[in-house]
Amino acid sequence: MKIGFVGLGIMGKPMAKNLIKAGFDVVVTTHKQEVIDEFVALGAKGAKNAADEVKQGCDVIITMLPNSPQVREVTLGAGGVVEGGKSGITVLDMSSIDPVESQKISAELEKSGIELLDCPVSGGEPKAIDGTLSVMAGGKKESFDKFLPVLKAMASSVVYVGPIGSGNVAKLANQMVVAANIGVVAEALTFAKKAGTDPRLVYEAIRGGLAGSTVMDAKAPMMLSGNYEPGFRIKLHIKDLTNALNAAHAINMPVPMTAHMMEVMQELMNHGEENCDHDDIIKYYERMTGVSIAEA
Amino acid sequence: MKIGFVGLGIMGKPMAKNLIKAGFDVVVTTHKQEVIDEFVALGAKGAKNAADEVKQGCDVIITMLPNSPQVREVTLGAGGVVEGGKSGITVLDMSSIDPVESQKISAELEKSGIELLDCPVSGGEPKAIDGTLSVMAGGKKESFDKFLPVLKAMASSVVYVGPIGSGNVAKLANQMVVAANIGVVAEALTFAKKAGTDPRLVYEAIRGGLAGSTVMDAKAPMMLSGNYEPGFRIKLHIKDLTNALNAAHAINMPVPMTAHMMEVMQELMNHGEENCDHDDIIKYYERMTGVSIAEA
Repeated sequence: MKIGFVGLGIMGKPMAKNLIKAGFDVVVTTHKQEVIDEFVALGAKGAKNAADEVKQGCDVIITMLPNSPQVREVTLGAGGVVEGGKSGITVLDMSSIDPVESQKISAELEKSGIELLDCPVSGGEPKAIDGTLSVMAGGKKESFDKFLPVLKAMASSVVYVGPIGSGNVAKLANQMVVAANIGVVAEALTFAKKAGTDPRLVYEAIRGGLAGSTVMDAKAPMMLSGNYEPGFRIKLHIKDLTNALNAAHAINMPVPMTAHMMEVMQELMNHGEENCDHDDIIKYYERMTGVSIAEA
Repeated sequence: MKIGFVGLGIMGKPMAKNLIKAGFDVVVTTHKQEVIDEFVALGAKGAKNAADEVKQGCDVIITMLPNSPQVREVTLGAGGVVEGGKSGITVLDMSSIDPVESQKISAELEKSGIELLDCPVSGGEPKAIDGTLSVMAGGKKESFDKFLPVLKAMASSVVYVGPIGSGNVAKLANQMVVAANIGVVAEALTFAKKAGTDPRLVYEAIRGGLAGSTVMDAKAPMMLSGNYEPGFRIKLHIKDLTNALNAAHAINMPVPMTAHMMEVMQELMNHGEENCDHDDIIKYYERMTGVSIAEA
């Protein structure tokens, strides 16, 4: 199987390297000659663009891009997959985008006999490097089964969720839960501090019970120590919540908690904190209350 | 140590029995003669009221009552602890109440030389029976240390949080987090269903990552199977959020997520669901969207 890869960013680069390590023939494309050279040294080939990857004989193109406009461009636009002029190939879009866009792009690709699977991931750069990402996949089940070994080369967990768009629905559901779980941990610990108790002791008292969560374990210690290093940047979480609100509103579904967390994140953006980790939500409460749980 | 117990309800009864099992001298009071008989058969003594428990020589009175008005009555009111006429004793209030009320009641008891520790618990009836509750304690540290063996007879986890009121601050922080964590799991899974995916597969796809939580593990399966059996009743969670809002507003702290979850629970009350488990929050989304994640 020959795999074309588009999107050699912080996540895409180690993902593509793991494909090479797993023994796949990989063709990459990027404007940066030094990155092409880096991959050629690892045994990959370089291409001008996605169309060129197809022309070089790739049967599957993986895209790992910022959002749906880039996915649309790389598949349907100038120099894109369709321009490669070959039907029967498959695009695995591993970007996190609006599932409604996944469905639209899929429908347009179908006209050229090209299939799309939406396979967004969770887990950040360290898991991309280790090949231990979590993939949530949508599309035709037979195709999912066919490309499972490809996805497994980059991920420790790969779950098939349903028809095209379902992968991104799951990813957005994930991001909605993460946002609110961070929000309420920040609210509860700031309340504890403001009420005169030690938020560290409250954290220790409640983390083992029904209030426990992966967010509590991972983010409360960061908040308590004043560590806002990314991690997962506020601006990326805003992208996901924007897509979640779009996707929900496209089916007339009110998502009040998601909408609230979006407003909280707008306040953070307003303070120039777009590149902070999403645990920075604690700052919203800090500014609102005048107390910081990071102080002793 | 001779312990008086007031509040032999669903929680209090097994808690008092665990004190007897642990070898403490226990004196109980209740209007129900058959309950007195039940405890006398186990080796306890009966009393008319809290004042009578003090007169029978109890050095510590444990209260496990619905809310602060009952705690105030049993400590400061007619037939209450103060009326027992003995200074130097301690009240362990294990009820979940507003921490501001804990502080006020403490200040009034102090005038009679009586000390208060607020020691609310988390964990329901099964954990009360097994003696595996979690206790969050506030008050003087020396007193906490002194009565730790008493608390340990009823709980597997006992955490000292800080001065009087801190136990209830921690308990309210816990209940704030639990409410929002349930709310957003319901929002995310209903979104998945409404968007045409199988919420069971989305649940499986996201529960292992940063969206994971004890609520996700414990409550999502209940929501997905349409099980609203208590568990922890909506009306009790409303009591806790009422106390959380009161306590937060007493220090001018906005708690927008808690306020939102209170409004959601009001909608459930409006539909007569006060005795459903708090996973019933999924019904709010069901009514709002016209889809149920409990359906196949």
